[in-house]
Amino acid sequence: MNRVYFLTGNVNKVKEASVILREYGIKVMKLSGIKKLEIQADSLEEIALTAARLVKNIVENPVIIEDDGIFIEALNGFPGPYSAYVYKKIGLPGILKLLTGIENRKAYFKSVIAYVDPRGNIELFTGVVYGVISYSIRGVRGFGYDPIFIPEGFSRTFAELTIREKCKISHRARALNKFAKWFKNR
Amino acid sequence: MNRVYFLTGNVNKVKEASVILREYGIKVMKLSGIKKLEIQADSLEEIALTAARLVKNIVENPVIIEDDGIFIEALNGFPGPYSAYVYKKIGLPGILKLLTGIENRKAYFKSVIAYVDPRGNIELFTGVVYGVISYSIRGVRGFGYDPIFIPEGFSRTFAELTIREKCKISHRARALNKFAKWFKNR
Repeated sequence: MNRVYFLTGNVNKVKEASVILREYGIKVMKLSGIKKLEIQADSLEEIALTAARLVKNIVENPVIIEDDGIFIEALNGFPGPYSAYVYKKIGLPGILKLLTGIENRKAYFKSVIAYVDPRGNIELFTGVVYGVISYSIRGVRGFGYDPIFIPEGFSRTFAELTIREKCKISHRARALNKFAKWFKNR
Repeated sequence: MNRVYFLTGNVNKVKEASVILREYGIKVMKLSGIKKLEIQADSLEEIALTAARLVKNIVENPVIIEDDGIFIEALNGFPGPYSAYVYKKIGLPGILKLLTGIENRKAYFKSVIAYVDPRGNIELFTGVVYGVISYSIRGVRGFGYDPIFIPEGFSRTFAELTIREKCKISHRARALNKFAKWFKNR
């Protein structure tokens, strides 16, 4: 079985990636002992690429690095690449407060995966899921912004879907599927 | 006259630093041609230090790098190190909206200056100014969060002060004064 190492501090992400990549016969391990560098930039691609470049000469196994964020149209794409920080500081109630009285609830989740192979090559894979921000916090599954994001074609939030349902349509799933198909055929 | 090069993309910061450091006989030049690396971290010190470490082996002149942010108590320190990004995305109206109905308006501005000398030594200097967030946007001077920050002991916002008044009490002025005194006596 192929193995890839996931450089992340977020065990939820490792769990989601495992569910998805298992289908392709790829085993996901959490890469420990080195730290992911996260720069401040408006683009997830730039953040993932910079992190990948920093480790590309030191890793001995295939590594994936992921960066994601939720981009809310009425807030000019806020919180975007800083979604994790904003979540920690103002939380979902803060986001709903910022959207008070605003009818445009359009938002999308985006994920960028940087793959670094032991020879130092880097490949990027992206995934996006469109949807709307709910008017209240709903559901207990998932993590982060899941309880306020309703994906297109659904009436439930990500946090009201099962992990299997979410893994079929999520931004990260889409990026991981692209990666897995490429990885199996490289 | 002594010269230091300021590694920043913000010309307003260069202007403020020039006013302050001129008093010490230090001339400030904008360092161009290299980019400031800004990592994502909760501490301004860590951000400034990482940026300084990256350039310390390549600069040929004394360089200062500054990182600052406004920390709002009722928002758990938000927007903190991400102040510039948050300003660009949700602006001052967004901050005032988040504080709607909240009586605790306490906030502080903090500045961290990293000084890198041509031999590769790094020194950090910090400055803080306490105050409160106003209930409306007031004043046209300064930049960023100045129109909603009322420093302790004043009834006007930073944007209602003259640049000379602001330069006496601002977080950046305090950090720069500490740096200048150290620099003249080193």
